[in-house]
Amino acid sequence: MASAGLGKIEVIPLSGVPEVREGEDLGKILLASVKQHGIRLVDRDIFVVKQKVVSKAEGQLVRLGAVHPGSKAKALAKSEGKDPRLVELILREATRIVRTGHGVIITETRHGFVCANSGVDQSNVGKGLVALLPLDPDRSAKKLRRELERGSGKRLAVVISDTFGRPWRVGQTDVAIGCSGILPLLPYAGKKDRFGYELRVTEPSVADEVAGAAELATGKLTGIPAAIVRGAEYVRGDKGVRSVIMPPERDLFR
Amino acid sequence: MASAGLGKIEVIPLSGVPEVREGEDLGKILLASVKQHGIRLVDRDIFVVKQKVVSKAEGQLVRLGAVHPGSKAKALAKSEGKDPRLVELILREATRIVRTGHGVIITETRHGFVCANSGVDQSNVGKGLVALLPLDPDRSAKKLRRELERGSGKRLAVVISDTFGRPWRVGQTDVAIGCSGILPLLPYAGKKDRFGYELRVTEPSVADEVAGAAELATGKLTGIPAAIVRGAEYVRGDKGVRSVIMPPERDLFR
Repeated sequence: MASAGLGKIEVIPLSGVPEVREGEDLGKILLASVKQHGIRLVDRDIFVVKQKVVSKAEGQLVRLGAVHPGSKAKALAKSEGKDPRLVELILREATRIVRTGHGVIITETRHGFVCANSGVDQSNVGKGLVALLPLDPDRSAKKLRRELERGSGKRLAVVISDTFGRPWRVGQTDVAIGCSGILPLLPYAGKKDRFGYELRVTEPSVADEVAGAAELATGKLTGIPAAIVRGAEYVRGDKGVRSVIMPPERDLFR
Repeated sequence: MASAGLGKIEVIPLSGVPEVREGEDLGKILLASVKQHGIRLVDRDIFVVKQKVVSKAEGQLVRLGAVHPGSKAKALAKSEGKDPRLVELILREATRIVRTGHGVIITETRHGFVCANSGVDQSNVGKGLVALLPLDPDRSAKKLRRELERGSGKRLAVVISDTFGRPWRVGQTDVAIGCSGILPLLPYAGKKDRFGYELRVTEPSVADEVAGAAELATGKLTGIPAAIVRGAEYVRGDKGVRSVIMPPERDLFR
């Protein structure tokens, strides 16, 4: 792994995928798009699938009009200038509030992700609806990987991506919130550089870099729900993104 | 920008580049590699160049044996289990210490980057040496872009990348520390999704995603100092990475 001779990487957007509804077979839909584009899959292709389409297939949409905000949500909505019903959902999806201010609510989700609004999002879902994150994105990734592998006969990987902000820099990048068939990190610890210096803590988060690379090819306004990343070095495995959540006792930014 | 019809993206590693020494013309060296690989550059190609090779060309290497640690560096080195000379350099490069613990020193650098060890790094430089970050990576990127454009006749962009950890997740991703010819963010604010919902705060950090995509093609042990990212949507401009540093008054994680 990660030895010399890395080659070219390609990121191939899957455009023209029809709107996905609850209960539909996402694997079948994506493979139909692959076929339609004349793409020949190869072993180790990584399907990067946006969280939004996974949430839709899993029925993780909520009608905002049906949400009754509690007093805590109302107070926070007022101080941050948000819709109280949206804040109610953000609080329900959160295990703790990490920071609030400047119209931003940063929480830790049930999955252990620290992100804005518990990942609750109103874009690309339709009027009056909001999308919640999948209940278990690693499990969603595993299910999808198996469907894709069964349908294609290839050994594949799946990364489910979402758009997260980050401290200290304006803007967002797409990161992995679930994965299967790919270990999120490439372990370099103990390897030596070409001068003989031993790397100790280097573990590139290939799952996050793959998610970001896919975002370059899909954008936010195109309705493109997925891309295939081909040629990236990674270790096959099934630990999931949950394995890279920083343990609280090592977390310097709690 | 960022409209429908995004196409395939390619990431092409520039392997076989000779070791770079202080004062050498990095643009000339990279263009020689491009030629050697038979790559035909096109307008809007993005050169992603690792910080280490830029630091080498700019003479930002320090011999550890020549560093005399002060008392503050000695104390911090003891508590975090590090070489006091290394810690002395980390402190010299920092404007403030953000967090320390578990063998980690997180600082804010003179550039405003929050990262481990002020970006001071011992890997891939040779025994007894450490590399400091370029003094002004945006300026370095601009100089390199001009050299590359002059030598090729194409309109190009340059991203200088480094490997940063992040809170809440184990592992690191490559991010942009300098750029030229590309605005670091794609401004979506005010654009509408296909359901008519207006995006308000969405600004994908394409410079960071491009840096991460390049890392997938270069790795850490190969001595590959650069990659070309082709086909990514971005806005041409010259604000630099400094324009995306979170202003202290909006920073929830100071």
